Amino acid sequence: MPAIISSNTYGKSCVRLLKVKRSGKVHDISELTVNILLEGDFESAHTDGDNSKVLPTDTMKNTVYALAKEDPVNSPEEFGLSLCEYLLKNHEQISKVSAEISEKLWKRIHTGEDKINSDHSFIRSGNEKKTAKISVMENEKTITSGLTDLLILKTTDSGFEKFYKDKYTTLKETSDRVFSTSVTAEWIYNKPDVNFNEQHNNVRRIILETFAGHKSLSVQHTLYEMGKNVIEYVKEVGEIHIIMPNKHYLLFDLEKLGLNNDNEIFIPTDEPFGLIEATVKRS
Amino acid sequence: MPAIISSNTYGKSCVRLLKVKRSGKVHDISELTVNILLEGDFESAHTDGDNSKVLPTDTMKNTVYALAKEDPVNSPEEFGLSLCEYLLKNHEQISKVSAEISEKLWKRIHTGEDKINSDHSFIRSGNEKKTAKISVMENEKTITSGLTDLLILKTTDSGFEKFYKDKYTTLKETSDRVFSTSVTAEWIYNKPDVNFNEQHNNVRRIILETFAGHKSLSVQHTLYEMGKNVIEYVKEVGEIHIIMPNKHYLLFDLEKLGLNNDNEIFIPTDEPFGLIEATVKRS
Amino acid sequence: MPAIISSNTYGKSCVRLLKVKRSGKVHDISELTVNILLEGDFESAHTDGDNSKVLPTDTMKNTVYALAKEDPVNSPEEFGLSLCEYLLKNHEQISKVSAEISEKLWKRIHTGEDKINSDHSFIRSGNEKKTAKISVMENEKTITSGLTDLLILKTTDSGFEKFYKDKYTTLKETSDRVFSTSVTAEWIYNKPDVNFNEQHNNVRRIILETFAGHKSLSVQHTLYEMGKNVIEYVKEVGEIHIIMPNKHYLLFDLEKLGLNNDNEIFIPTDEPFGLIEATVKRS
Amino acid sequence: MPAIISSNTYGKSCVRLLKVKRSGKVHDISELTVNILLEGDFESAHTDGDNSKVLPTDTMKNTVYALAKEDPVNSPEEFGLSLCEYLLKNHEQISKVSAEISEKLWKRIHTGEDKINSDHSFIRSGNEKKTAKISVMENEKTITSGLTDLLILKTTDSGFEKFYKDKYTTLKETSDRVFSTSVTAEWIYNKPDVNFNEQHNNVRRIILETFAGHKSLSVQHTLYEMGKNVIEYVKEVGEIHIIMPNKHYLLFDLEKLGLNNDNEIFIPTDEPFGLIEATVKRS
Repeated sequence: MPAIISSNTYGKSCVRLLKVKRSGKVHDISELTVNILLEGDFESAHTDGDNSKVLPTDTMKNTVYALAKEDPVNSPEEFGLSLCEYLLKNHEQISKVSAEISEKLWKRIHTGEDKINSDHSFIRSGNEKKTAKISVMENEKTITSGLTDLLILKTTDSGFEKFYKDKYTTLKETSDRVFSTSVTAEWIYNKPDVNFNEQHNNVRRIILETFAGHKSLSVQHTLYEMGKNVIEYVKEVGEIHIIMPNKHYLLFDLEKLGLNNDNEIFIPTDEPFGLIEATVKRS
Repeated sequence: MPAIISSNTYGKSCVRLLKVKRSGKVHDISELTVNILLEGDFESAHTDGDNSKVLPTDTMKNTVYALAKEDPVNSPEEFGLSLCEYLLKNHEQISKVSAEISEKLWKRIHTGEDKINSDHSFIRSGNEKKTAKISVMENEKTITSGLTDLLILKTTDSGFEKFYKDKYTTLKETSDRVFSTSVTAEWIYNKPDVNFNEQHNNVRRIILETFAGHKSLSVQHTLYEMGKNVIEYVKEVGEIHIIMPNKHYLLFDLEKLGLNNDNEIFIPTDEPFGLIEATVKRS
Repeated sequence: MPAIISSNTYGKSCVRLLKVKRSGKVHDISELTVNILLEGDFESAHTDGDNSKVLPTDTMKNTVYALAKEDPVNSPEEFGLSLCEYLLKNHEQISKVSAEISEKLWKRIHTGEDKINSDHSFIRSGNEKKTAKISVMENEKTITSGLTDLLILKTTDSGFEKFYKDKYTTLKETSDRVFSTSVTAEWIYNKPDVNFNEQHNNVRRIILETFAGHKSLSVQHTLYEMGKNVIEYVKEVGEIHIIMPNKHYLLFDLEKLGLNNDNEIFIPTDEPFGLIEATVKRS
Repeated sequence: MPAIISSNTYGKSCVRLLKVKRSGKVHDISELTVNILLEGDFESAHTDGDNSKVLPTDTMKNTVYALAKEDPVNSPEEFGLSLCEYLLKNHEQISKVSAEISEKLWKRIHTGEDKINSDHSFIRSGNEKKTAKISVMENEKTITSGLTDLLILKTTDSGFEKFYKDKYTTLKETSDRVFSTSVTAEWIYNKPDVNFNEQHNNVRRIILETFAGHKSLSVQHTLYEMGKNVIEYVKEVGEIHIIMPNKHYLLFDLEKLGLNNDNEIFIPTDEPFGLIEATVKRS
């Protein structure tokens, strides 16, 4: 037979879960979307249609809900780790379990003149999501924490000047532009016993404060400053990867209409967009 | 000729605009998406390819940006009204101008231990949008204010019982369920001189507080309560139309896995979904 | 009480269905998405939380599947009519039932050198969908047939010249441009006993042939020509409404790069877009 | 300084291009979406805000359009290779250029009773796209060809039986089910001088014919059969990676409504979905 399988994996994607946690009248919620992938002894399923070692993806789905019943679901990192370890431990044909989990964010509705927190009513706070990637093998486990779709914009303290030019360069230099991006970040802690939610808040806060306070000379410049500050101020983080699309807000050419545009009127655009990525780590 | 045109309209959709407003170091922003539609004397464009009365949709786009330069862009309602009135007044072949405007919502980034508002840095606060629909004819103008994509969820004080049953009814009655919806609301003021942003906040606050505080016997029941409270407490509103999809969170059947589910573990679903609409008006 | 309900409706959206129809070894499929809305005696559900007349939306979903079992599901129009009539007839609190149905299109996979049709294997043929809107009351029923997301493009025989200009007009006249649109059309037959699938094919064919064969002076011009030809050649159609966004393909300015652009290099754009609509009917 | 950059890249995404190619009256079109990423000597841009080596992403965009003017744009593979080689050769600070290109597919509109091909009018043939991934360094280049969003469905000759079961397994065995998937495939040729479009057609045809003709014992079984047949019949392909989500069509439980369901009535679902991947290569 001329064809061989050099790698294979399978799993269940988009398993969606809401867990309601009750402490008397006060309820908390966690809404997760879980993707699971398995590696292991599954070659004969491909070559012979032998399903005798194939754990159905429907069972993976059931397992998510069953474990969510027992697990406190405090963080996507901890729940993902429980899930991966359970699947690896209980099925000897599996050699590696990976999970990607994203958490939709809800905050309490405030009511009344005193803006009292509701015990049980919530409003979705944006598209931003907490993320976690976990992979577990017999002798190795990795946990990556992250966030995605953190959409931010600043109206000044951002420029792009003195850049390299070639014969196709028509972009004008600017010392003052609108800078908007949707941050995706993933980081690895350098020790195992971390309070994931607390440190997530720290990383997120530093990203936002750097963005707001930094005089940006380029997206790269700001991205690195975010990563450097996370490394400097969150000692638990060993390495952070940041992805920042440049969501261009183009100055509209009002001159052709007989008007001037003092950095007031912009066209938000979705495409094309610049895309900047880097990994910053502790030296 | 056997074919006649019984109605026609045309315009420009998805004209996107950011206006930056500066008061010294403090900047404010408005990000709008504008759809324009015209009616008028355009029949010969269809039947004869005669473009002599056709204002290009590209010109409508330019007009949005030109007016945004001059206009303070305080609210989608006021900007939309200026836009419609400008187009109607300046082009006699136009008999009616309609605009639909939605505003993406940004709030200031807080920085530092004191959580000071940034002067110029913003974070998108969710998918929720302010909306306005304006239409202007020679002797008539209408303004509708609204909001959309207000995504909310409550974990108790919601049931659905004693409903009508037929031979295909299999749904179980429940006195305690998760209730989630994405509110779309549109309302009409009963007087012309309204502070649109202030009243928008009032309507939105009442919708949220009603949702949080109300013991819901059905989506209809809550929708009406929202509408009734808006009519009662915001005397400027004459009529409100509310659309609430029932974003079902289904109780996962843990019993088949040998576990019980005390209203803890739910499956969020996107489809199918219930859809409830009503108009409530001042009697 | 100062608030009254002036209108209300409710139903189930996005009920998705695949029906497999077997004639020996040859299988046919219909994949539908169904939205149902009811009107009737539902006021007390809103005002008093009285569910005694509320048919659950879950039951509407069940009804779709139950009727699909019995019905041949030959066309979205006929299935929608069966569904609406069933719901109206069996529930006296209902005064009006509306259904919107869209059908995803599949064609057979060809295999072998002879390109033989597979008996049971299919490939999705694009995003285009057949649509039907049905509404049924005691003494009235209406059926609208349609199509949506029919995405087409022509590279010549399209211009836009001699248009009306004002002070904000910067668009250049062009006698040769790329014209692309995504057609949505809805039409009403002028007699009840129509072969819906056959006539749908006729309308669709005329729209495509008009687009391909017509020298377009504007989107309006082509839209009307389509409508006029449908009215002329499909005598069963009484009226057709067509919506055509102008999906702009902009000529890229190669001159600024020292090159010329002989209508060769274009930028496809999603937004903003022109939007043209008209209704053409039999006179 | 405790923070160092361990990797970085940047580029332009979603550069959209239509090239119109004219041979007398007969026109051909290619519609591409291009993503470019660069690696190289860009560290000081991050650490010092030094843009002197930063080729603007706007220039990358211009380069796409300029090269598309000169290049015949015969295939995404060849155009991508030209683009990457141009950028690498002309800018010494760049050490690696990667491009991901997808091509939207258009076919000619047929007109008249003879179904004659239009010279210049086209209809989008589905969501399926041709894809290519190219990366070029000084001493190495790789070209990956592919397709994505090839949406297929079969109504029989598919089962899933005798699978592994644990305590959370509730899935029932079935010897006859609906099997639908959206194929993504990427393959590498084992020689440089390939007619990319011709071989793409061959790979695609084998994937479709395998799907239609194969008795599937699992998604894995079919995926491997596709890969094996590509390796066997397209001698130019050295390795193919296939990703197949299991787009579940669930049998609707008609028994609870007093009806039986002989594999006729299914619920199409988007989530959750099984996800199966493997790489098959020439041994």
